[in-house]
Amino acid sequence: MKHPPGGRRAAFPRFPDAPPPQSVAELETPAAVVDLDRLAHNLEAMATYSALHGLSLRPHVKTHKSPRIAAEQVRLGAVGLTCATTRELEVMADVSRDLLLAYPAIGSAKLARLMTLPRETRITVAVDSATAIEQLASTARVVDREIGVYIELDVGMKRVGVATAEQAVELARLVWRSPPLRYAGIAFYPGHIRERVSEQGPAIEQLNADLGRTIRALERQGLTPPVVSGGSTPAAWRMHEVEGLTEVRPGTYVYNDRVTAAIGACSWDDCALTVAATVISTSVPGQVVIDAGAKALGREPMRGAEGEGYGALLDRPELVVSRMSEEHGIIELGDSDWKPKIGDMVRVVPNHVCIVVHLFDEIHGVRNDMVETTWPVEARGRGPVRKD
Amino acid sequence: MKHPPGGRRAAFPRFPDAPPPQSVAELETPAAVVDLDRLAHNLEAMATYSALHGLSLRPHVKTHKSPRIAAEQVRLGAVGLTCATTRELEVMADVSRDLLLAYPAIGSAKLARLMTLPRETRITVAVDSATAIEQLASTARVVDREIGVYIELDVGMKRVGVATAEQAVELARLVWRSPPLRYAGIAFYPGHIRERVSEQGPAIEQLNADLGRTIRALERQGLTPPVVSGGSTPAAWRMHEVEGLTEVRPGTYVYNDRVTAAIGACSWDDCALTVAATVISTSVPGQVVIDAGAKALGREPMRGAEGEGYGALLDRPELVVSRMSEEHGIIELGDSDWKPKIGDMVRVVPNHVCIVVHLFDEIHGVRNDMVETTWPVEARGRGPVRKD
Repeated sequence: MKHPPGGRRAAFPRFPDAPPPQSVAELETPAAVVDLDRLAHNLEAMATYSALHGLSLRPHVKTHKSPRIAAEQVRLGAVGLTCATTRELEVMADVSRDLLLAYPAIGSAKLARLMTLPRETRITVAVDSATAIEQLASTARVVDREIGVYIELDVGMKRVGVATAEQAVELARLVWRSPPLRYAGIAFYPGHIRERVSEQGPAIEQLNADLGRTIRALERQGLTPPVVSGGSTPAAWRMHEVEGLTEVRPGTYVYNDRVTAAIGACSWDDCALTVAATVISTSVPGQVVIDAGAKALGREPMRGAEGEGYGALLDRPELVVSRMSEEHGIIELGDSDWKPKIGDMVRVVPNHVCIVVHLFDEIHGVRNDMVETTWPVEARGRGPVRKD
Repeated sequence: MKHPPGGRRAAFPRFPDAPPPQSVAELETPAAVVDLDRLAHNLEAMATYSALHGLSLRPHVKTHKSPRIAAEQVRLGAVGLTCATTRELEVMADVSRDLLLAYPAIGSAKLARLMTLPRETRITVAVDSATAIEQLASTARVVDREIGVYIELDVGMKRVGVATAEQAVELARLVWRSPPLRYAGIAFYPGHIRERVSEQGPAIEQLNADLGRTIRALERQGLTPPVVSGGSTPAAWRMHEVEGLTEVRPGTYVYNDRVTAAIGACSWDDCALTVAATVISTSVPGQVVIDAGAKALGREPMRGAEGEGYGALLDRPELVVSRMSEEHGIIELGDSDWKPKIGDMVRVVPNHVCIVVHLFDEIHGVRNDMVETTWPVEARGRGPVRKD
């Protein structure tokens, strides 16, 4: 795999294998299109924020699933990468030698695949149960491979993670006495923080109280966490207020989306990925149908609220995709002054970009409405990477 | 491409390239798993129904996107196949020489790709606008290729299709005088019929009234439709009550899903596709977390209703995936007597199976909990088919 050349700043580099430029208007739709300047700005902004506050940046690749972008994140200072799936790990092992699986690896199929990652790759896994630790340790022993372990804390999302300091201590001790596992620290995902950025103060205070209690309990047992890892894109810009935090793992920030803009963690102009779609029918008065439906946009709500549509037009954010079939998206025109014609191309900012990337095999990188490069979403899917 | 051997009935055939059997329990999760006996039963049931009522069966491939299953549909008597995307057309051209694009082909990229299908493939396109007819005719003229055209009617779904008999006559006339287009008939999608099968009578009556008006108007103008094409899986079993109908296009029936069972268009035991998932966390009391989230199950509602979850356990349908992240599904246990342990495998019947198939690259065909064969979801995605 070729990595993009480094050196330029604040502009996503051109790739040597770039095809001759093509206009966005010539693409077959639906197509996933990324504004390269916005992408470069987003990558730069998070790298700068993390560096400024002395936080290690370990971006989550689930959003882009693309080694090219991961390589750019590393070039801009990321200490390593965060993954959710075994395929993401396999693909990203070509880019970074320091990978975190922010997901419990359960079951022999997944564990075996984890152990076949290149030996020179340093692997850490976030776990929240004795079972996960025991499975990981026994598999690691078979291949005699050191695996780092973060103890996953639940700080309010009620998804995974232990809820009390006592449980965290207990699991950390278990890791400590389970070689070849290495106790690497603690991790949390503040996915419950979905307020607007300016209103996140109380949630951060609560997080500091809970996290502080766990850190102190670990310290008292001689289990001071080497790394305290947390963070998401919605809460990314206030992570420097979290006491003891050493590492952040935002993912969505590379592309951003309608939810992120609504939270105020990016501006509308920072939304780098859009789904290009074509108006295919105007038969029903008061609406248009575009060729991007649930198989292109996903069916993700706005911050838990139904009825706000599944994406909005980039240049007319008041117009939303309000109904969908698999391959149809319906935009109700209301009192808009837009006079759509069949064949018109629109650009839809999706609600949740990570879901959209998982629906496309390739991404078109554009600048000034010209397609400058196209890259595969190499870590999409589940199977082993196909080597030709 | 190899097609499955024919000859056996009521049992999906074994494939010559089948790998050595593997237990479902050994699969890395999440995985899409199809019960081969249920699949065979579903294929057989629809073929029998259509034959019994003298309806031509042109199944929609969007549900399975797999040439193997399409070939089985053809073997069981399908007159051709229905597609929604250009990639589906390209893949299915290897299986059938009679393909319907039940989708307006708009824009030069899509039209050009349509025209590069093998010359021996008979192509029909369903359209609902003069613009679509003009674009299709002018492209077909360039390559001197006959293309069949269905005029798409809106019979109540308010998505695509013309609403009045007059508009249908007008578009049929336009096709008639736009060689090399061939006026092939009319088409509709009764996607608004989502009542339980036993309660669909009034909707069918309304459909007969509307459809009859359009057919008579066309007849009066000497534009008798050679084909009247309609149908969906929810309304599939009452399509023989639609007067004048000659062709049906169900898709979902091959696998079925939770919505189809709720409508009564299949039984729970006809749900052939499940997502195999593993319990990865039990940290939060009263719930378990499985490794199938929105990137494996989609976020499709039950018949428009929110709050009923995104899928249900095959052997405990009262337990549903009530919340999801990208890679996490949360099942609330309520007063269930299930005592889940980390590592337990569950099988989730998704709400909407067509969305799930689009999320996986391969499907495992199982019988008696053994993986008998694995096939690629070859028409998933958008790009051209990769020929090795």
